[in-house]
Amino acid sequence: MTDDLPNPALLPSGLSDLLPPEAAREAALVEAMMAVFASHGYERVKPPLLEFEEGLLQGSGAALADQTFRLMDPESQRMMGLRADTTPQVARIAATRLRDAARPLRLSYAGQVLRVRGTQIAPGRQLPQLGVELIGVDSAEADAEAAALGVEALAAAGIEGVALDITLPPMSPALLDAAGLEGAARSRLARALDRKDAAEVARLAEAAGPPAVFLVELLAAAGPADGALAALRAAPLPEAPRRIADNAAEVVAALRRRLPGLRITLDPVEFRGFRYHTGVAFTLYGPGRSGELGRGGRYLSGEEPATGLSLYPDAALRAAPTVALPERVFLPAGHDPAAAAALRREGWVTVAALSPADEATALGCTRELRGGRLVALGRGAAVDADAVGAGAAGAPPIVRE
Amino acid sequence: MTDDLPNPALLPSGLSDLLPPEAAREAALVEAMMAVFASHGYERVKPPLLEFEEGLLQGSGAALADQTFRLMDPESQRMMGLRADTTPQVARIAATRLRDAARPLRLSYAGQVLRVRGTQIAPGRQLPQLGVELIGVDSAEADAEAAALGVEALAAAGIEGVALDITLPPMSPALLDAAGLEGAARSRLARALDRKDAAEVARLAEAAGPPAVFLVELLAAAGPADGALAALRAAPLPEAPRRIADNAAEVVAALRRRLPGLRITLDPVEFRGFRYHTGVAFTLYGPGRSGELGRGGRYLSGEEPATGLSLYPDAALRAAPTVALPERVFLPAGHDPAAAAALRREGWVTVAALSPADEATALGCTRELRGGRLVALGRGAAVDADAVGAGAAGAPPIVRE
Repeated sequence: MTDDLPNPALLPSGLSDLLPPEAAREAALVEAMMAVFASHGYERVKPPLLEFEEGLLQGSGAALADQTFRLMDPESQRMMGLRADTTPQVARIAATRLRDAARPLRLSYAGQVLRVRGTQIAPGRQLPQLGVELIGVDSAEADAEAAALGVEALAAAGIEGVALDITLPPMSPALLDAAGLEGAARSRLARALDRKDAAEVARLAEAAGPPAVFLVELLAAAGPADGALAALRAAPLPEAPRRIADNAAEVVAALRRRLPGLRITLDPVEFRGFRYHTGVAFTLYGPGRSGELGRGGRYLSGEEPATGLSLYPDAALRAAPTVALPERVFLPAGHDPAAAAALRREGWVTVAALSPADEATALGCTRELRGGRLVALGRGAAVDADAVGAGAAGAPPIVRE
Repeated sequence: MTDDLPNPALLPSGLSDLLPPEAAREAALVEAMMAVFASHGYERVKPPLLEFEEGLLQGSGAALADQTFRLMDPESQRMMGLRADTTPQVARIAATRLRDAARPLRLSYAGQVLRVRGTQIAPGRQLPQLGVELIGVDSAEADAEAAALGVEALAAAGIEGVALDITLPPMSPALLDAAGLEGAARSRLARALDRKDAAEVARLAEAAGPPAVFLVELLAAAGPADGALAALRAAPLPEAPRRIADNAAEVVAALRRRLPGLRITLDPVEFRGFRYHTGVAFTLYGPGRSGELGRGGRYLSGEEPATGLSLYPDAALRAAPTVALPERVFLPAGHDPAAAAALRREGWVTVAALSPADEATALGCTRELRGGRLVALGRGAAVDADAVGAGAAGAPPIVRE
């Protein structure tokens, strides 16, 4: 290597190595969460990382068009995209190869997504993502199943105390429609809502007439679900907004049946970040300051009603409790391979000597296998432990001191 | 969608979707194999899919330069590569962020690699890959550990009867060096070896003089390891080839201690496909016609001696026995969520009704939860099974008929 070459440790911004023990922890979290999805009948699919851009950017994928890396396929001379989201791929699979599978179709996925640019809050350009898509059914039970799966999956990853925030992305447009608002007046009111500027929303809604006035009430209603639902019930909403409000109440009720203790908030007029959602949308927040751990909601998968959930394992990794790593046992030259295999079956990690230079404690070992016995290493004299494999059947033969 | 758009089901050649149940099986195989690596002290790393091309194409990565997709990083205006192999990334991590970690450094990885073009035998352009790198030790024990890990990992994936083929990539060059062969004469002999053209090797070696004559014997020695090692022992080899032969004998002996029953073959003059290997290299073959399941061998990780192993989960998936999928239980509307959770804990997959249109058998369910009891569905009348959760502690409460 010469001094002219860039620092080999340098990676492009937003791309990083996950080192021990985090890489193993992330993989374990992913599989624990995928196992929850599988136990509820979700079957795993694995779309490729690269495909023709038309497929990737259809439907919900259009929202990520400017975040998608593109490259030329030398075989077909057509442009391919590196996926920035997995949902459009699952929609493609549901609409083509699994077109004839029974509905509702329950699919799950786990993999990496890549984005051209990171954001200030999420600077990563490669993000692990896992989730489910529930395709071909439009019911409150379906939305509740997707959201509850997120809570159960995070619990399986050791993350308790998750809160669910529900939004109703079609509500504001429906109220603006009902008020007959168009053009500049509509844009101004939408922007004021976006900024949560209550005074400006009140001023513009007053000028726009009765149906828009509900926006003021609904903006104030955001908070714990029960209060927000009561405000929605009390408001004399026009027909389309009423249906949206009633559906929200049904979804919350279906969630309460599944997870009576779940903390649910509802913000009826919030719609940022859920551009392609056609019904209830939700965000899962971890306890304390751990932030957003996943999101989902109702959308169109091709031409089918669908609801989905995405979880972010990198965020879950930061929120999950760390677990103790298994202890490491050093295997000196000439050790008994059968005794070593027995240790591994019992959950120990074994580290074999490969040359006379290998040092047990430098390699993180706390024990050494000597003559069929586990000997404690480090601090003070070596201490004999029980003989390997000498325990009664079913009982661990090795005492962990 | 209009007729002008390409068929959305069409994916670029060599890129494909893995559907149920294969995607779940592949993920389970990967984690089962990674667990074997972890039990031997290998710690997982997860390098990014994209990085600056200089890093990717260093060392062993140079061999895959023309197979690497490249794209411009809009942030740094530098070229990035989509990894075609993970080994160069692990070498980078070992040389930089883990430079001060104790040696031997045991690292493992699992992920996807992408290649610009597939080959005739391996048309895939996205390949799952997992493996280990054992860095900072040059011993026969280390090579044996890497190869034995492959056999043990495949066994954990249910693949028994794996055979190991060992090659010695530096042997032919060392013999050609010892014979003082250069230029056209050397190229002709190397090509004849490459084609395994014994008559031509004999003719050219005869002309080249004594040390090259061993090539004829060694070409004929390929086969079961014991015979090949006997031929190597018997041949009065010059010094450098002798060291390579003695090392091969040590590696085979170290392997026999670990896996006495393993079928090992040795081809001393084969060197194709192992361009960057500096010592013993090996290929793992599945039983029957299942083909190559992995390969590895000794190389240089930056400036450190290293040995590694890569396994191909897509090939393992084809070679592994299929396992029965868990049975699916339909949960009608108004079911008891606690009973459903108990079923999932016992290993059943539950599928909840989300609308009156849901049909249990169409959704693959063989049982239905009715009033706290599991009822068999399909063929003939429904049959009562045991009550859920009524079994004795530790015994499965549900009889699978």
